[in-house]
Amino acid sequence: MVLISLTTDFGLRDHYVGVMKGVIAEIAPDAKLVDVTHEIPPQDLRAAAYVLWSSLPYFPADSVHLVVVDPGVGSARRAIASQTAWGVLVAPDNGVCSYVWAAAPPILTVELDNPHYRRAAVSHTFHGRDIFAPAAAYLASGTPLAELGRPVQAPVRLPTPAISVGEVEICGEVIYVDHFGNAVTSIGRLVWDGAMVHLDPAFGEAGRRIVAVGRVTVRAAGRDLGPIRRTYSETSPGEPLALVGSEGMLEIAVNQGSGAQVLELQPGDPVEVIAGR
Amino acid sequence: MVLISLTTDFGLRDHYVGVMKGVIAEIAPDAKLVDVTHEIPPQDLRAAAYVLWSSLPYFPADSVHLVVVDPGVGSARRAIASQTAWGVLVAPDNGVCSYVWAAAPPILTVELDNPHYRRAAVSHTFHGRDIFAPAAAYLASGTPLAELGRPVQAPVRLPTPAISVGEVEICGEVIYVDHFGNAVTSIGRLVWDGAMVHLDPAFGEAGRRIVAVGRVTVRAAGRDLGPIRRTYSETSPGEPLALVGSEGMLEIAVNQGSGAQVLELQPGDPVEVIAGR
Amino acid sequence: MVLISLTTDFGLRDHYVGVMKGVIAEIAPDAKLVDVTHEIPPQDLRAAAYVLWSSLPYFPADSVHLVVVDPGVGSARRAIASQTAWGVLVAPDNGVCSYVWAAAPPILTVELDNPHYRRAAVSHTFHGRDIFAPAAAYLASGTPLAELGRPVQAPVRLPTPAISVGEVEICGEVIYVDHFGNAVTSIGRLVWDGAMVHLDPAFGEAGRRIVAVGRVTVRAAGRDLGPIRRTYSETSPGEPLALVGSEGMLEIAVNQGSGAQVLELQPGDPVEVIAGR
Repeated sequence: MVLISLTTDFGLRDHYVGVMKGVIAEIAPDAKLVDVTHEIPPQDLRAAAYVLWSSLPYFPADSVHLVVVDPGVGSARRAIASQTAWGVLVAPDNGVCSYVWAAAPPILTVELDNPHYRRAAVSHTFHGRDIFAPAAAYLASGTPLAELGRPVQAPVRLPTPAISVGEVEICGEVIYVDHFGNAVTSIGRLVWDGAMVHLDPAFGEAGRRIVAVGRVTVRAAGRDLGPIRRTYSETSPGEPLALVGSEGMLEIAVNQGSGAQVLELQPGDPVEVIAGR
Repeated sequence: MVLISLTTDFGLRDHYVGVMKGVIAEIAPDAKLVDVTHEIPPQDLRAAAYVLWSSLPYFPADSVHLVVVDPGVGSARRAIASQTAWGVLVAPDNGVCSYVWAAAPPILTVELDNPHYRRAAVSHTFHGRDIFAPAAAYLASGTPLAELGRPVQAPVRLPTPAISVGEVEICGEVIYVDHFGNAVTSIGRLVWDGAMVHLDPAFGEAGRRIVAVGRVTVRAAGRDLGPIRRTYSETSPGEPLALVGSEGMLEIAVNQGSGAQVLELQPGDPVEVIAGR
Repeated sequence: MVLISLTTDFGLRDHYVGVMKGVIAEIAPDAKLVDVTHEIPPQDLRAAAYVLWSSLPYFPADSVHLVVVDPGVGSARRAIASQTAWGVLVAPDNGVCSYVWAAAPPILTVELDNPHYRRAAVSHTFHGRDIFAPAAAYLASGTPLAELGRPVQAPVRLPTPAISVGEVEICGEVIYVDHFGNAVTSIGRLVWDGAMVHLDPAFGEAGRRIVAVGRVTVRAAGRDLGPIRRTYSETSPGEPLALVGSEGMLEIAVNQGSGAQVLELQPGDPVEVIAGR
């Protein structure tokens, strides 16, 4: 029983997600359906790319991941399916798979142009129902990826989240703010062993190395947040702090509060780790 | 593995939907459960009727559709199950199935009065758990519809969404506003082939025909919205427009905005398509 | 196919619930996943305890119930799994199972300290993914409870919801407010047979008995709400009332409105039933 995960910005108020599941159930009645989230901020490709990157490693490797965050629906943007070590992604060709590809490179990516594997009538406004859901369902039913369309050589990629390592500091940026107000940054995967900070970048350049010896200070929104903490409770309620989140990324948070709100952090805002202070 | 879809106005904050699924799993452990939506506006029968009409055709035809939008819970309104070509609907007898019946007429409708197929103790306030969920589960397990109760001859029907076709105009009304702010109207199924507008009414009178030759103008909220567009991107961001939505119905929208908000449209508001301008 | 239910305060905006389901699907691909709710008010153990108590009896008795409402994540609080007649609960040892245990006493409770049944790397901030989800999945796959860790003798318990029965009155408190604004109280299970009020306490002392003869009056928020009603419609729209809810507990509601809003009721607020008026 193959699993199909679903990630969209459709929200749960309307019936659009339910309709996609109906389409899938008709084609692949035995597929197991699991929602990742349907509350991606509308048309926010970077947020969706991050959510996929931090979710897919926890799913069975033979899963199919249906992604519909699609500002270009009805335009000429391509629809693709991409085999990776983290499963097959079915998505618009708009870069939403980029962060996954940085960790699990595309093995084969095809354009979903075989009309046999879409609905007979394709609307201009709901490709989730008419193209992406059928493709995911056929893949989950065992249809070979190569059947769905022609290979795509250069799928669209988003810029890699900014991270630069200097003599005494690492500079990164906020890449996602969760509903608790935790601001996840591009700085990671960081490991703080009490004496040294090791960096094993999640995106872009690879290779773990020591980036700081001794204490470091984290700076965000023009404020010093002190060293990297182990848990929220190492600061007083309401106080901002930096810690290594559940994905190994540096996160800015507030004990019993919202880091994003207290510090007015948004995706793209800079965050620094400064050594030796 | 039969599919049971669920459509309610319960929201997802409380445990009421989960409890119904527990009841179903006890009776029909193999049924596949798919949420259509639980965010129908409270007690809004027309919205629920529209959501069912636009969702059910995408589900397997042997599905069971559990519907609990039930302003009359605890009163004398009947509980029914209705076999159609779009599956069996299990719902209160308050008209919520009307729009589905307009497209897929009831083959057999019974009152859920056989106490064997409800919970032993029926509360006054939660028939979803005590009557509707067990009925849906027994049907999904293969219990014949006729076992569940006596045939109902004249189930309650809502008025058909307003649509009238004149010499030079079609008049309809807004029937649903989605969370993007798209206002779906009763005018459809419209096909604009570049030269002529064809109308194939979704509800009420049947039979496709030509309703206009040449350009048409759409009017809503006292404003001219120009001709029927093919995609959102044919207007500037923030500008209202009319287009044929994914169900073939005329929709009023705003490119990168909310049609319902910009034009202050609500269900029941009139919308016109005027020929030859 | 064993059922795993999920109850958390994670909300549905982020991918955290989806990630837990991915972890479960990897270990127990055949488990059926049912959400109870993910909208428990953040870190509200009493609300979660009530939701579990009022949901679990409706699930198959061999279900596994995954509960992650966990203010103490990363601290020394234990993680436990507890076999009861209502299934196995997998939860933090913070009292969240207390109300269930009052009705379905723990048969065997173990600490989840066997590293074989958690993820290899356990984060400080996401035990739902690293400890609780794997434990639930292994239990659903048939791993004996005793394998998961050492027996726990005295798991943490919350105080029992307040209820006291005097000569002429029953005093209780609000224990949960649902999204309709219905305020569920600790007073129940009440049965009003038209002549006498019978009380069969849900928590604490057991044994059904007559607590009042003739009419009673309900008082909440300093107001007389009149007798216990049978349905909402026995009062005018907007008027507050008391009735016996779907779980047999006394509830304070407003016909076509929000009881909690009109009367400004919150969990912990006192409610009284006074006999003979």
